[in-house]
Amino acid sequence: MRVAVSPHPPGADELTPTDRTTLRRKKERGNHDRSVVNAILDEGLLCHVGISVDGTPFVMPMAYARIGDALYLHGATGNRMLRHMAQGAEVCVTVTLLDGLVLARSAFHHSMNFRSVVLLGTTVRVDDDDEKRRATTALLEHIVPGRSIHTRPPSTEELRAVLMVRMPIEEGSAKIRTGGPIDEPEDLGSPVWAGQIPLSIAAGEAVIDGAPPPGVVEPDYVRAYPARGTGGRASPGGAHLSGAHRGARVVAPGG
Amino acid sequence: MRVAVSPHPPGADELTPTDRTTLRRKKERGNHDRSVVNAILDEGLLCHVGISVDGTPFVMPMAYARIGDALYLHGATGNRMLRHMAQGAEVCVTVTLLDGLVLARSAFHHSMNFRSVVLLGTTVRVDDDDEKRRATTALLEHIVPGRSIHTRPPSTEELRAVLMVRMPIEEGSAKIRTGGPIDEPEDLGSPVWAGQIPLSIAAGEAVIDGAPPPGVVEPDYVRAYPARGTGGRASPGGAHLSGAHRGARVVAPGG
Repeated sequence: MRVAVSPHPPGADELTPTDRTTLRRKKERGNHDRSVVNAILDEGLLCHVGISVDGTPFVMPMAYARIGDALYLHGATGNRMLRHMAQGAEVCVTVTLLDGLVLARSAFHHSMNFRSVVLLGTTVRVDDDDEKRRATTALLEHIVPGRSIHTRPPSTEELRAVLMVRMPIEEGSAKIRTGGPIDEPEDLGSPVWAGQIPLSIAAGEAVIDGAPPPGVVEPDYVRAYPARGTGGRASPGGAHLSGAHRGARVVAPGG
Repeated sequence: MRVAVSPHPPGADELTPTDRTTLRRKKERGNHDRSVVNAILDEGLLCHVGISVDGTPFVMPMAYARIGDALYLHGATGNRMLRHMAQGAEVCVTVTLLDGLVLARSAFHHSMNFRSVVLLGTTVRVDDDDEKRRATTALLEHIVPGRSIHTRPPSTEELRAVLMVRMPIEEGSAKIRTGGPIDEPEDLGSPVWAGQIPLSIAAGEAVIDGAPPPGVVEPDYVRAYPARGTGGRASPGGAHLSGAHRGARVVAPGG
């Protein structure tokens, strides 16, 4: 199966819905808005990249960076998955933000609140040193905003030691669940605590490497590194993203 | 490609190393110990499941439960991926715990601390109601220890509305990075803050659904829901799991 060429111009407001990126169940949780997709991509720290090698799927966690409508992945030149991807592989890139646990009165209706993006596409190897530099900067700024000006940029030798690929953000969709449990009416009166436990990624106290260089203090972007994934805490009713609806039948986010 | 049948008896201390689960680079980060693999599986809340459909990879987040040497996945009977898996699909299940960000003096040596497990295997549909009940209990106890005794167990009708598959925890490996940045010697004197930002999953204040039933208080397992993923904070030197070593060349955990 090949990726269908999307008929919409790059930068359009929506990813083009395709059969394989359109929810058939709980359609109200699906979303093709580029702004929603980008917000999830920009908040995530890790993606899970899937490729198929002779029919066998492999899924690996990777860092990533977004520049406009392109997603960048990279690794060492010896990385097996990246070597496949450098030859132009179909990939699935999934980013999941876990916002909370949903405790229902019945086992069946337990669920999770989450925001996820699934992107499908074909990777292209990036060989241009300038593009690799831009993607490296974007990666640092994505993970730790403000960091790139404090680091030594990659040398040409270092750039060449990195295998980098780009994929278009063209085919894909977001999926979002927010809110509390949806129990059966007959369970609502049962003497059981039900509700949500919001989850977020919290930063602990930073650990310096070695002795502080003279005159160097802990940067603000380290000291006040922001928490991520508070979508479930700030708005248990689901106000943080339009188009999100309550309603759960299964525990699995993928369900 | 088919999964090689592992020659070791179930429950042995190690997953059998195979070519496709053995690290070829940074071998010191790889681990086939069953105890290490299980600890990561038990700490994770979500896995990312990959399947290949006509050569196209799909990766979805899912909840999971472990019972001994078996992993359980489930969802609605209409779930496309689960329908493939119910027919006996090769899958890759990856669990990633992000423990921290590693800020080096050079852009090139930025990295992340993480613990991940990659499992390969073939799924088998679970039709036995008792096995489905046990897996449902295991799932609740995995996500919120103590929860299962407070919930109405699934009815037979609800059990039948869930598509469940099992995969053996047989072929796979763990990969772990801990510790601070590994910079080039010539960068060590540069006037740049370098170190780690530990990350963990923190629980916020729980949000009750509806009015509290008379006499029902917030359970301890909700009020004191434990943080997860503190591997990077508690032991920046890497003491929390044996066999873990420092040493990074790429930013991507998958690199």
